[in-house]
Amino acid sequence: MKTNSAPSELRKLIRTGQWSAPTSGVAPGYVQANLVMLPAAEAFHFLLFCVRNPKPCPILDVLEPGVPTPRIAPDADLRTDLPRYRIFENGEFKTEVEAVIDYFDQGMVSFLLGCSFSFEKALLAAGLPVRNLEEGRNVSMYVTDISCTPAGPFAAPLVVSMRPMTPQQAVRAVQITTRFHLTHGAPVHLGAPEAIGICNLQAPDFGDPVTIGPGEIPVFWACGVTSQLAATSAPLSRVITHAPGHMFVTDLRDEDLSLL
Amino acid sequence: MKTNSAPSELRKLIRTGQWSAPTSGVAPGYVQANLVMLPAAEAFHFLLFCVRNPKPCPILDVLEPGVPTPRIAPDADLRTDLPRYRIFENGEFKTEVEAVIDYFDQGMVSFLLGCSFSFEKALLAAGLPVRNLEEGRNVSMYVTDISCTPAGPFAAPLVVSMRPMTPQQAVRAVQITTRFHLTHGAPVHLGAPEAIGICNLQAPDFGDPVTIGPGEIPVFWACGVTSQLAATSAPLSRVITHAPGHMFVTDLRDEDLSLL
Repeated sequence: MKTNSAPSELRKLIRTGQWSAPTSGVAPGYVQANLVMLPAAEAFHFLLFCVRNPKPCPILDVLEPGVPTPRIAPDADLRTDLPRYRIFENGEFKTEVEAVIDYFDQGMVSFLLGCSFSFEKALLAAGLPVRNLEEGRNVSMYVTDISCTPAGPFAAPLVVSMRPMTPQQAVRAVQITTRFHLTHGAPVHLGAPEAIGICNLQAPDFGDPVTIGPGEIPVFWACGVTSQLAATSAPLSRVITHAPGHMFVTDLRDEDLSLL
Repeated sequence: MKTNSAPSELRKLIRTGQWSAPTSGVAPGYVQANLVMLPAAEAFHFLLFCVRNPKPCPILDVLEPGVPTPRIAPDADLRTDLPRYRIFENGEFKTEVEAVIDYFDQGMVSFLLGCSFSFEKALLAAGLPVRNLEEGRNVSMYVTDISCTPAGPFAAPLVVSMRPMTPQQAVRAVQITTRFHLTHGAPVHLGAPEAIGICNLQAPDFGDPVTIGPGEIPVFWACGVTSQLAATSAPLSRVITHAPGHMFVTDLRDEDLSLL
Protein backbone atom coordinates (compact mmCIF):
# COMPACT_ATOMS: atom_id res chain seq x y z
CA MET A 1 0.00 0.00 0.00
CA LYS A 2 1.19 3.48 -0.75
CA THR A 3 1.48 5.38 2.48
CA ASN A 4 -0.19 8.42 0.96
CA SER A 5 -3.48 6.64 0.30
CA ALA A 6 -6.51 8.68 1.09
CA PRO A 7 -8.07 7.86 4.46
CA SER A 8 -11.10 6.12 2.95
CA GLU A 9 -8.88 3.78 0.89
CA LEU A 10 -6.84 2.95 3.97
CA ARG A 11 -9.97 2.30 6.01
CA LYS A 12 -11.27 -0.02 3.27
CA LEU A 13 -8.04 -2.05 3.42
CA ILE A 14 -8.37 -2.26 7.18
CA ARG A 15 -12.06 -3.22 6.99
CA THR A 16 -11.35 -6.02 4.53
CA GLY A 17 -8.52 -7.46 6.59
CA GLN A 18 -5.69 -6.33 4.28
CA TRP A 19 -4.11 -3.95 6.81
CA SER A 20 -3.72 -4.75 10.50
CA ALA A 21 -0.46 -2.95 11.29
CA PRO A 22 0.04 0.24 13.30
CA THR A 23 -0.99 3.46 11.55
CA SER A 24 2.04 5.61 12.35
CA GLY A 25 3.10 7.47 9.20
CA VAL A 26 0.24 6.29 6.98
CA ALA A 27 -2.20 8.67 5.26
CA PRO A 28 0.14 11.56 6.01
CA GLY A 29 -1.54 14.92 6.52
CA TYR A 30 -4.70 13.37 7.93
CA VAL A 31 -5.64 13.44 11.58
CA GLN A 32 -5.54 10.16 13.49
CA ALA A 33 -7.58 9.59 16.62
CA ASN A 34 -7.72 7.65 19.86
CA LEU A 35 -10.92 5.59 20.23
CA VAL A 36 -12.90 4.95 23.42
CA MET A 37 -16.31 3.21 23.40
CA LEU A 38 -18.28 2.78 26.61
CA PRO A 39 -21.83 2.39 27.94
CA ALA A 40 -24.19 5.34 27.41
CA ALA A 41 -25.05 5.42 31.12
CA GLU A 42 -21.51 6.65 31.83
CA ALA A 43 -21.09 8.74 28.67
CA PHE A 44 -21.91 12.05 30.39
CA HIS A 45 -19.24 11.53 33.01
CA PHE A 46 -16.63 10.37 30.51
CA LEU A 47 -17.39 13.37 28.27
CA LEU A 48 -17.08 15.53 31.37
CA PHE A 49 -13.69 13.94 32.13
CA CYS A 50 -12.52 14.87 28.63
CA VAL A 51 -13.88 18.42 28.90
CA ARG A 52 -12.14 18.87 32.25
CA ASN A 53 -8.83 17.48 30.94
CA PRO A 54 -8.63 18.88 27.41
CA LYS A 55 -4.87 18.58 27.01
CA PRO A 56 -4.67 14.78 27.36
CA CYS A 57 -8.23 14.22 26.07
CA PRO A 58 -8.97 16.67 23.22
CA ILE A 59 -12.40 15.84 21.79
CA LEU A 60 -12.58 15.40 18.02
CA ASP A 61 -15.97 13.68 17.84
CA VAL A 62 -18.54 12.05 20.13
CA LEU A 63 -21.37 9.97 18.67
CA GLU A 64 -24.91 9.21 19.74
CA PRO A 65 -25.46 5.85 21.52
CA GLY A 66 -25.27 2.93 19.09
CA VAL A 67 -23.96 5.04 16.21
CA PRO A 68 -20.67 3.78 14.68
CA THR A 69 -20.40 6.45 11.94
CA PRO A 70 -18.27 9.45 12.88
CA ARG A 71 -19.07 12.90 11.55
CA ILE A 72 -15.37 13.40 10.80
CA ALA A 73 -15.30 10.37 8.44
CA PRO A 74 -18.86 9.85 7.18
CA ASP A 75 -18.13 6.69 5.15
CA ALA A 76 -16.36 4.93 8.01
CA ASP A 77 -17.53 2.35 10.53
CA LEU A 78 -15.79 2.54 13.88
CA ARG A 79 -16.55 -1.14 14.52
CA THR A 80 -14.33 -2.36 11.67
CA ASP A 81 -12.10 0.48 10.48
CA LEU A 82 -9.33 0.38 13.05
CA PRO A 83 -6.61 -2.25 12.59
CA ARG A 84 -6.77 -3.52 16.15
CA TYR A 85 -8.91 -3.02 19.25
CA ARG A 86 -8.71 -3.83 22.93
CA ILE A 87 -11.66 -5.08 24.96
CA PHE A 88 -11.92 -4.38 28.70
CA GLU A 89 -14.61 -5.81 30.98
CA ASN A 90 -15.15 -4.69 34.58
CA GLY A 91 -11.98 -2.63 34.30
CA GLU A 92 -9.81 -5.57 33.22
CA PHE A 93 -8.17 -6.25 29.87
CA LYS A 94 -9.84 -9.21 28.17
CA THR A 95 -8.65 -9.56 24.58
CA GLU A 96 -7.36 -7.87 21.44
CA VAL A 97 -9.39 -8.15 18.22
CA GLU A 98 -9.43 -6.78 14.66
CA ALA A 99 -13.13 -5.81 14.64
CA VAL A 100 -15.71 -5.13 17.34
CA ILE A 101 -18.96 -5.93 15.52
CA ASP A 102 -19.62 -8.54 18.22
CA TYR A 103 -18.75 -6.21 21.11
CA PHE A 104 -20.23 -2.80 20.21
CA ASP A 105 -23.98 -2.55 20.83
CA GLN A 106 -26.81 -0.01 20.74
CA GLY A 107 -26.05 1.04 24.28
CA MET A 108 -22.48 2.24 23.64
CA VAL A 109 -21.12 5.72 22.89
CA SER A 110 -17.96 6.30 20.83
CA PHE A 111 -15.40 9.01 21.58
CA LEU A 112 -12.63 10.06 19.17
CA LEU A 113 -9.80 12.01 20.80
CA GLY A 114 -6.84 13.80 19.22
CA CYS A 115 -3.41 12.15 19.03
CA SER A 116 0.10 13.47 18.71
CA PHE A 117 0.77 12.24 15.16
CA SER A 118 -0.54 15.59 13.80
CA PHE A 119 1.86 17.75 15.73
CA GLU A 120 4.82 15.42 15.12
CA LYS A 121 4.38 16.12 11.43
CA ALA A 122 4.32 19.85 12.12
CA LEU A 123 7.50 19.55 14.24
CA LEU A 124 9.28 17.72 11.40
CA ALA A 125 8.10 20.33 8.90
CA ALA A 126 9.78 22.97 11.08
CA GLY A 127 13.05 21.02 11.09
CA LEU A 128 12.73 20.02 14.74
CA PRO A 129 13.86 16.58 15.91
CA VAL A 130 11.32 13.85 16.65
CA ARG A 131 13.73 11.37 18.14
CA ASN A 132 11.32 8.43 18.26
CA LEU A 133 10.75 8.72 14.50
CA GLU A 134 14.50 9.18 13.84
CA GLU A 135 15.24 6.01 15.81
CA GLY A 136 12.26 4.02 14.53
CA ARG A 137 10.83 3.51 17.99
CA ASN A 138 7.56 4.19 19.74
CA VAL A 139 7.49 7.49 21.58
CA SER A 140 8.47 7.32 25.28
CA MET A 141 5.46 7.69 27.57
CA TYR A 142 5.40 8.13 31.34
CA VAL A 143 2.79 8.11 34.09
CA THR A 144 3.26 11.36 36.04
CA ASP A 145 2.34 12.24 39.61
CA ILE A 146 -0.10 14.87 38.29
CA SER A 147 -3.73 13.90 38.80
CA CYS A 148 -6.29 14.70 36.13
CA THR A 149 -9.50 16.36 37.31
CA PRO A 150 -11.87 13.43 37.97
CA ALA A 151 -15.48 13.20 36.77
CA GLY A 152 -17.98 10.73 38.16
CA PRO A 153 -16.28 7.32 38.35
CA PHE A 154 -13.38 8.31 36.09
CA ALA A 155 -9.94 9.25 37.40
CA ALA A 156 -6.43 8.94 36.04
CA PRO A 157 -2.92 10.26 36.42
CA LEU A 158 -1.72 12.47 33.56
CA VAL A 159 0.31 10.41 31.09
CA VAL A 160 2.86 12.32 29.02
CA SER A 161 4.91 11.63 25.90
CA MET A 162 8.48 12.95 25.72
CA ARG A 163 10.64 14.25 22.89
CA PRO A 164 14.18 15.48 23.60
CA MET A 165 15.43 18.71 22.00
CA THR A 166 17.64 21.71 22.69
CA PRO A 167 16.14 24.60 24.69
CA GLN A 168 16.03 26.71 21.52
CA GLN A 169 14.18 23.95 19.69
CA ALA A 170 11.86 23.58 22.68
CA VAL A 171 10.83 27.24 22.38
CA ARG A 172 9.96 26.73 18.72
CA ALA A 173 8.14 23.48 19.55
CA VAL A 174 5.98 25.37 22.07
CA GLN A 175 5.00 27.83 19.35
CA ILE A 176 4.23 25.14 16.81
CA THR A 177 2.25 22.79 19.03
CA THR A 178 0.24 25.66 20.52
CA ARG A 179 -1.48 25.87 17.13
CA PHE A 180 -2.71 22.30 17.54
CA HIS A 181 -4.79 22.47 20.71
CA LEU A 182 -6.95 19.54 19.54
CA THR A 183 -3.94 17.24 19.31
CA HIS A 184 -2.61 17.91 22.83
CA GLY A 185 -1.43 21.50 22.24
CA ALA A 186 1.57 23.07 23.95
CA PRO A 187 3.87 21.02 26.23
CA VAL A 188 2.78 20.47 29.82
CA HIS A 189 6.36 20.47 31.13
CA LEU A 190 9.98 20.77 30.06
CA GLY A 191 13.24 19.98 31.82
CA ALA A 192 13.45 18.26 35.21
CA PRO A 193 11.50 14.98 34.91
CA GLU A 194 11.42 14.49 38.69
CA ALA A 195 9.27 17.62 39.02
CA ILE A 196 6.37 15.64 37.55
CA GLY A 197 7.19 12.34 39.21
CA ILE A 198 9.30 10.70 36.51
CA CYS A 199 12.32 8.89 38.02
CA ASN A 200 14.08 7.45 34.99
CA LEU A 201 13.66 8.68 31.43
CA GLN A 202 15.24 5.48 30.12
CA ALA A 203 12.46 3.39 31.67
CA PRO A 204 9.22 4.68 30.15
CA ASP A 205 5.92 3.22 31.36
CA PHE A 206 4.74 2.80 27.75
CA GLY A 207 6.63 2.85 24.44
CA ASP A 208 10.39 2.74 24.04
CA PRO A 209 13.32 4.71 25.48
CA VAL A 210 15.01 7.14 23.06
CA THR A 211 18.44 8.79 23.00
CA ILE A 212 18.78 12.15 24.75
CA GLY A 213 21.70 14.06 23.21
CA PRO A 214 24.12 16.45 24.93
CA GLY A 215 22.52 19.82 25.62
CA GLU A 216 19.03 18.44 25.08
CA ILE A 217 16.19 18.67 27.56
CA PRO A 218 13.10 16.45 27.73
CA VAL A 219 9.92 18.15 26.51
CA PHE A 220 6.67 16.61 27.71
CA TRP A 221 3.26 16.68 26.07
CA ALA A 222 -0.04 15.38 27.44
CA CYS A 223 -0.73 11.94 25.97
CA GLY A 224 -3.93 10.21 24.81
CA VAL A 225 -3.08 7.12 26.84
CA THR A 226 -4.50 9.14 29.74
CA SER A 227 -7.97 8.66 28.27
CA GLN A 228 -7.54 4.90 28.18
CA LEU A 229 -6.43 4.80 31.82
CA ALA A 230 -9.45 6.94 32.71
CA ALA A 231 -11.92 4.84 30.72
CA THR A 232 -10.70 1.66 32.36
CA SER A 233 -10.42 3.20 35.85
CA ALA A 234 -14.09 2.45 36.53
CA PRO A 235 -15.45 -1.12 36.59
CA LEU A 236 -17.69 -0.63 33.54
CA SER A 237 -19.30 -3.71 32.03
CA ARG A 238 -17.39 -3.08 28.81
CA VAL A 239 -14.92 -0.57 27.36
CA ILE A 240 -13.46 -0.80 23.86
CA THR A 241 -10.33 1.14 22.84
CA HIS A 242 -7.91 1.10 19.89
CA ALA A 243 -4.80 -1.00 20.46
CA PRO A 244 -1.73 1.20 21.02
CA GLY A 245 -0.50 2.70 17.75
CA HIS A 246 -3.48 1.30 15.82
CA MET A 247 -5.41 4.52 15.50
CA PHE A 248 -8.53 5.61 13.63
CA VAL A 249 -7.62 7.61 10.51
CA THR A 250 -10.11 10.45 10.00
CA ASP A 251 -10.97 12.57 6.96
CA LEU A 252 -9.80 15.72 8.78
CA ARG A 253 -6.57 17.26 7.59
CA ASP A 254 -4.01 18.22 10.22
CA GLU A 255 -4.37 21.85 9.19
CA ASP A 256 -8.13 21.70 9.81
CA LEU A 257 -7.26 21.48 13.51
CA SER A 258 -4.78 24.32 13.62
CA LEU A 259 -5.95 27.31 15.56
CA LEU A 260 -3.91 29.98 13.80
CA MET B 1 -20.10 49.53 44.92
CA LYS B 2 -16.72 49.97 43.33
CA THR B 3 -16.70 48.30 39.92
CA ASN B 4 -13.31 46.75 40.59
CA SER B 5 -14.50 44.65 43.51
CA ALA B 6 -13.14 41.16 43.58
CA PRO B 7 -15.54 38.56 42.21
CA SER B 8 -16.28 37.05 45.62
CA GLU B 9 -17.25 40.45 47.05
CA LEU B 10 -19.53 41.09 44.12
CA ARG B 11 -21.13 37.66 44.46
CA LYS B 12 -21.72 38.32 48.16
CA LEU B 13 -23.55 41.56 47.32
CA ILE B 14 -25.64 39.69 44.76
CA ARG B 15 -26.36 36.83 47.19
CA THR B 16 -27.54 39.23 49.89
CA GLY B 17 -29.81 41.17 47.55
CA GLN B 18 -27.66 44.30 47.36
CA TRP B 19 -26.91 43.98 43.65
CA SER B 20 -29.47 42.90 41.05
CA ALA B 21 -28.32 44.93 38.03
CA PRO B 22 -26.58 43.67 34.88
CA THR B 23 -22.92 42.72 35.29
CA SER B 24 -21.48 44.45 32.24
CA GLY B 25 -18.29 46.25 33.24
CA VAL B 26 -18.19 45.04 36.85
CA ALA B 27 -15.26 43.08 38.31
CA PRO B 28 -13.14 44.05 35.31
CA GLY B 29 -10.51 41.53 34.31
CA TYR B 30 -12.55 38.57 35.52
CA VAL B 31 -14.34 36.13 33.24
CA GLN B 32 -18.13 36.23 33.21
CA ALA B 33 -20.20 33.26 32.14
CA ASN B 34 -23.53 32.24 30.66
CA LEU B 35 -25.48 29.83 32.89
CA VAL B 36 -27.66 26.90 31.79
CA MET B 37 -29.14 24.40 34.28
CA LEU B 38 -31.14 21.41 33.05
CA PRO B 39 -32.14 17.86 34.03
CA ALA B 40 -29.32 15.30 34.32
CA ALA B 41 -31.13 12.93 31.96
CA GLU B 42 -30.42 15.36 29.11
CA ALA B 43 -27.03 16.57 30.32
CA PHE B 44 -25.03 14.27 28.02
CA HIS B 45 -26.81 15.56 24.95
CA PHE B 46 -26.54 19.20 26.00
CA LEU B 47 -22.84 18.76 26.75
CA LEU B 48 -22.53 17.13 23.32
CA PHE B 49 -24.30 20.14 21.75
CA CYS B 50 -21.73 22.43 23.38
CA VAL B 51 -18.79 20.24 22.30
CA ARG B 52 -20.10 20.18 18.73
CA ASN B 53 -20.65 23.94 18.65
CA PRO B 54 -17.67 25.31 20.57
CA LYS B 55 -17.72 28.82 19.10
CA PRO B 56 -21.19 29.79 20.41
CA CYS B 57 -21.00 27.41 23.41
CA PRO B 58 -17.45 27.38 24.83
CA ILE B 59 -17.44 25.26 27.98
CA LEU B 60 -15.91 26.85 31.09
CA ASP B 61 -17.30 24.44 33.67
CA VAL B 62 -19.86 21.65 33.98
CA LEU B 63 -20.92 20.37 37.39
CA GLU B 64 -22.11 17.03 38.71
CA PRO B 65 -25.90 16.63 39.14
CA GLY B 66 -27.19 18.59 42.12
CA VAL B 67 -23.92 20.45 42.69
CA PRO B 68 -24.23 24.27 42.73
CA THR B 69 -20.53 25.02 43.47
CA PRO B 70 -18.42 25.70 40.38
CA ARG B 71 -14.78 24.69 40.27
CA ILE B 72 -13.98 28.09 38.74
CA ALA B 73 -15.39 29.94 41.79
CA PRO B 74 -15.20 27.56 44.77
CA ASP B 75 -16.89 29.87 47.29
CA ALA B 76 -19.84 30.60 45.02
CA ASP B 77 -23.36 29.17 44.88
CA LEU B 78 -24.88 29.18 41.40
CA ARG B 79 -28.39 29.17 42.93
CA THR B 80 -27.98 32.62 44.47
CA ASP B 81 -24.94 34.36 43.01
CA LEU B 82 -26.34 35.64 39.72
CA PRO B 83 -28.35 38.86 39.85
CA ARG B 84 -31.27 37.51 37.83
CA TYR B 85 -32.41 34.19 36.39
CA ARG B 86 -34.98 32.97 33.90
CA ILE B 87 -37.07 29.85 34.42
CA PHE B 88 -38.38 27.83 31.47
CA GLU B 89 -40.75 24.88 31.74
CA ASN B 90 -41.61 22.55 28.85
CA GLY B 91 -39.70 24.89 26.54
CA GLU B 92 -41.68 27.99 27.55
CA PHE B 93 -40.58 31.04 29.52
CA LYS B 94 -42.25 31.10 32.93
CA THR B 95 -40.74 33.76 35.14
CA GLU B 96 -37.71 35.82 36.10
CA VAL B 97 -36.31 35.53 39.64
CA GLU B 98 -33.32 36.69 41.72
CA ALA B 99 -32.47 33.26 43.17
CA VAL B 100 -33.25 29.68 42.16
CA ILE B 101 -33.03 27.86 45.50
CA ASP B 102 -36.64 26.78 44.97
CA TYR B 103 -36.09 25.68 41.35
CA PHE B 104 -32.70 23.92 41.28
CA ASP B 105 -32.81 20.36 42.60
CA GLN B 106 -30.55 17.30 42.97
CA GLY B 107 -31.45 16.16 39.48
CA MET B 108 -30.10 19.21 37.64
CA VAL B 109 -26.72 19.82 35.99
CA SER B 110 -25.17 23.30 35.68
CA PHE B 111 -23.23 24.51 32.65
CA LEU B 112 -21.09 27.67 32.59
CA LEU B 113 -20.24 28.90 29.09
CA GLY B 114 -17.90 31.70 27.99
CA CYS B 115 -19.24 35.16 27.14
CA SER B 116 -17.93 38.00 25.03
CA PHE B 117 -17.20 40.42 27.87
CA SER B 118 -13.63 39.02 28.08
CA PHE B 119 -12.71 39.72 24.51
CA GLU B 120 -14.42 43.14 24.49
CA LYS B 121 -11.94 44.18 27.14
CA ALA B 122 -9.08 42.85 25.02
CA LEU B 123 -10.39 44.77 21.99
CA LEU B 124 -10.53 48.00 24.02
CA ALA B 125 -7.01 47.41 25.31
CA ALA B 126 -5.86 47.24 21.70
CA GLY B 127 -7.53 50.56 20.90
CA LEU B 128 -10.26 48.96 18.77
CA PRO B 129 -13.80 50.32 18.85
CA VAL B 130 -16.53 48.50 20.78
CA ARG B 131 -19.44 50.57 19.54
CA ASN B 132 -22.03 49.17 21.95
CA LEU B 133 -19.86 50.23 24.91
CA GLU B 134 -19.14 53.64 23.31
CA GLU B 135 -22.86 54.24 22.88
CA GLY B 136 -23.93 52.72 26.21
CA ARG B 137 -26.12 50.12 24.56
CA ASN B 138 -26.44 46.36 24.60
CA VAL B 139 -24.51 44.67 21.81
CA SER B 140 -26.54 43.96 18.65
CA MET B 141 -27.38 40.26 18.29
CA TYR B 142 -28.93 38.47 15.32
CA VAL B 143 -30.35 35.03 14.58
CA THR B 144 -28.52 33.77 11.47
CA ASP B 145 -29.58 31.20 8.87
CA ILE B 146 -26.64 29.00 9.93
CA SER B 147 -27.73 25.87 11.82
CA CYS B 148 -25.68 24.61 14.73
CA THR B 149 -24.84 20.90 14.73
CA PRO B 150 -27.70 19.31 16.71
CA ALA B 151 -27.27 16.77 19.52
CA GLY B 152 -30.11 14.61 20.82
CA PRO B 153 -33.16 16.86 21.33
CA PHE B 154 -31.15 20.10 21.12
CA ALA B 155 -31.01 22.28 18.00
CA ALA B 156 -30.60 26.00 17.39
CA PRO B 157 -29.65 28.54 14.77
CA LEU B 158 -26.32 30.24 15.33
CA VAL B 159 -26.83 33.59 17.05
CA VAL B 160 -24.13 36.22 16.48
CA SER B 161 -23.15 39.51 18.07
CA MET B 162 -21.93 42.34 15.84
CA ARG B 163 -19.37 45.10 16.30
CA PRO B 164 -18.67 47.55 13.45
CA MET B 165 -15.06 48.49 12.60
CA THR B 166 -12.85 49.34 9.65
CA PRO B 167 -11.37 46.45 7.65
CA GLN B 168 -7.94 47.19 9.15
CA GLN B 169 -9.39 47.09 12.64
CA ALA B 170 -11.22 43.87 11.74
CA VAL B 171 -7.91 42.18 10.87
CA ARG B 172 -6.50 43.14 14.26
CA ALA B 173 -9.71 42.03 15.98
CA VAL B 174 -9.36 38.59 14.36
CA GLN B 175 -5.87 38.29 15.79
CA ILE B 176 -6.89 39.41 19.26
CA THR B 177 -10.05 37.34 19.63
CA THR B 178 -8.33 34.22 18.26
CA ARG B 179 -6.44 34.15 21.56
CA PHE B 180 -9.72 33.82 23.45
CA HIS B 181 -11.19 30.61 22.06
CA LEU B 182 -13.11 30.00 25.30
CA THR B 183 -14.97 33.29 24.96
CA HIS B 184 -16.18 32.73 21.38
CA GLY B 185 -12.78 33.10 19.65
CA ALA B 186 -12.31 34.55 16.17
CA PRO B 187 -15.23 36.07 14.24
CA VAL B 188 -17.53 33.72 12.35
CA HIS B 189 -18.20 36.25 9.57
CA LEU B 190 -17.40 39.77 8.43
CA GLY B 191 -18.96 42.01 5.83
CA ALA B 192 -22.17 41.18 3.95
CA PRO B 193 -24.83 40.47 6.59
CA GLU B 194 -27.17 38.89 4.02
CA ALA B 195 -24.64 36.09 3.49
CA ILE B 196 -25.60 34.71 6.91
CA GLY B 197 -29.29 35.55 6.70
CA ILE B 198 -29.33 38.96 8.39
CA CYS B 199 -31.67 41.38 6.55
CA ASN B 200 -31.37 44.58 8.56
CA LEU B 201 -28.48 45.44 10.88
CA GLN B 202 -30.58 48.19 12.45
CA ALA B 203 -33.18 45.66 13.62
CA PRO B 204 -31.29 43.18 15.81
CA ASP B 205 -33.16 40.17 17.19
CA PHE B 206 -31.70 40.82 20.66
CA GLY B 207 -29.96 43.87 22.15
CA ASP B 208 -29.86 47.32 20.62
CA PRO B 209 -28.89 48.73 17.22
CA VAL B 210 -25.57 50.63 17.08
CA THR B 211 -24.11 53.20 14.70
CA ILE B 212 -22.11 51.89 11.75
CA GLY B 213 -19.69 54.58 10.58
CA PRO B 214 -18.52 55.32 7.03
CA GLY B 215 -15.95 52.78 5.84
CA GLU B 216 -16.87 50.34 8.60
CA ILE B 217 -17.95 46.75 8.10
CA PRO B 218 -19.93 44.58 10.49
CA VAL B 219 -17.85 41.93 12.25
CA PHE B 220 -19.79 38.98 13.65
CA TRP B 221 -18.89 36.72 16.57
CA ALA B 222 -20.70 33.61 17.76
CA CYS B 223 -22.92 34.51 20.72
CA GLY B 224 -23.83 32.69 23.94
CA VAL B 225 -27.52 33.34 23.36
CA THR B 226 -27.24 30.34 21.03
CA SER B 227 -26.91 28.09 24.08
CA GLN B 228 -30.11 29.46 25.57
CA LEU B 229 -32.04 28.87 22.35
CA ALA B 230 -30.63 25.33 22.26
CA ALA B 231 -31.44 24.59 25.91
CA THR B 232 -35.03 25.73 25.45
CA SER B 233 -35.46 24.07 22.03
CA ALA B 234 -36.43 20.80 23.72
CA PRO B 235 -39.54 20.53 25.92
CA LEU B 236 -37.59 19.79 29.11
CA SER B 237 -39.46 19.83 32.39
CA ARG B 238 -37.28 22.73 33.56
CA VAL B 239 -34.41 24.85 32.30
CA ILE B 240 -32.81 27.69 34.27
CA THR B 241 -30.64 30.35 32.61
CA HIS B 242 -29.18 33.70 33.60
CA ALA B 243 -31.28 36.69 32.54
CA PRO B 244 -29.67 38.55 29.61
CA GLY B 245 -26.73 40.64 30.78
CA HIS B 246 -26.95 39.27 34.32
CA MET B 247 -24.00 36.91 34.12
CA PHE B 248 -22.12 34.75 36.61
CA VAL B 249 -18.82 36.39 37.60
CA THR B 250 -16.11 33.74 37.99
CA ASP B 251 -12.75 33.77 39.75
CA LEU B 252 -10.95 33.20 36.43
CA ARG B 253 -9.02 36.12 35.01
CA ASP B 254 -9.54 36.94 31.35
CA GLU B 255 -5.88 36.15 30.70
CA ASP B 256 -6.32 32.67 32.19
CA LEU B 257 -8.37 31.87 29.10
CA SER B 258 -5.98 33.25 26.50
CA LEU B 259 -4.37 30.62 24.35
CA LEU B 260 -1.20 32.49 23.46
